[in-house]
Amino acid sequence: MELNVPVQAIGVVRCGHRDLETTPIQAGVNRVEQAVVELEPAFAEGLDGLGGIDYAWLLTWLHEQPSGDVPPLRQVPFLLRGQRRQMGIFATRGPRRVNPIGLSLIEIIEISGTRLTFAGVDVVDGTPVIDIKPYVTRFDRPAGDPRCGWFDEVSIDERATPEWLASRS
Amino acid sequence: MELNVPVQAIGVVRCGHRDLETTPIQAGVNRVEQAVVELEPAFAEGLDGLGGIDYAWLLTWLHEQPSGDVPPLRQVPFLLRGQRRQMGIFATRGPRRVNPIGLSLIEIIEISGTRLTFAGVDVVDGTPVIDIKPYVTRFDRPAGDPRCGWFDEVSIDERATPEWLASRS
Repeated sequence: MELNVPVQAIGVVRCGHRDLETTPIQAGVNRVEQAVVELEPAFAEGLDGLGGIDYAWLLTWLHEQPSGDVPPLRQVPFLLRGQRRQMGIFATRGPRRVNPIGLSLIEIIEISGTRLTFAGVDVVDGTPVIDIKPYVTRFDRPAGDPRCGWFDEVSIDERATPEWLASRS
Repeated sequence: MELNVPVQAIGVVRCGHRDLETTPIQAGVNRVEQAVVELEPAFAEGLDGLGGIDYAWLLTWLHEQPSGDVPPLRQVPFLLRGQRRQMGIFATRGPRRVNPIGLSLIEIIEISGTRLTFAGVDVVDGTPVIDIKPYVTRFDRPAGDPRCGWFDEVSIDERATPEWLASRS
C-alpha cells in the first residue's frame, strides 16, 4: 500500500564513489574512509547536540535503485554471490528493497556548519540523506552476542564490494 | 528538497498502545513487551532467512506526526523534559522529524506466514512498517564503549513514556 507522504532530502553525501559495484557494501566494513554529509542550510540547527556523540545512523534514499516497482523478494545478497544463495530481502541489507532506504552506522568525525564529516562509507556520491539519528548504546546494542543467521556463516572481508565479491565467485 | 519517491507500507504494527504519551519511548527500554508486524501478504517471501536472526531493525513511518511541515529543528527530547533542555532533532531519537521515520531494535520471537512476533515495542497500534533489516553485529555494533553525548548524562528508566517523564519534571 502506497503511503501518500512526502520524503525530504535533508542533505546529500559527498564522497569518492561513483559506481555501486566498487562501493563498499557496508559502512561497517569500510570504517576508515571518510566522506561528508552536506546538510541543506535550512536544517543546520538540527545538528546541535551531535557533538560529543561518537556514532550516528545515517538514513539515505538509495536513489540509484529502480524506484516504484517491487524488486524481487528473494535475491542473492552480495555476500552470497559465491554460493548463489538467495535470501528474502528483509533478511538482507542489500539496496534493492521495497523502500530503498539505506541504514549506515557512521562515526562522526567533525561537524562544521552544514558539513558533517564522517567515517564509514557505503553509498555513492550524491546519495540523498533523509535522516540522521544518534547512536545510543542503551537503545541500539542487543545484550550478549546475538545470532545473525546466515551472516554468521560468511566471512566479511574489508575489501567487500559487489565487484570484489563477484570476482571471487 | 522534496524527493519525488513513493513510500510503500510493507505491513503494520499490531500492539496494545493507542496513545503516544503512554507508549514507551524506545524499544530498548521496553524489551519485554511483545507485538506483531502483520506483513502485507504480497511481501511474505521477503522474510525468508530471518529465522536464526535474533534481532532486526524495524523502520516505521510515524504516521501520527504532523506530515509535510518542517518540525521545530530544536526540541526538548522526552528524556530532557525535566530539564527543559533543547537539542537539535538530529541529536535526538524523537518522533517529530523532517521525515518521521522510526528506527527500533526489535527481538524476533517468531515468524509464521505473514506474522512476525517481536519484543521491544515503541510505536502505537497501526503504525505502518516501511522496512525490516537484519541486525548484523559486524555492521551495527561500534567498537568499545562509544560516547553518546547528552544520553550519557540522563538516566533512562524502563518506565519511560512521554507521560511518565513529564510527571517527573
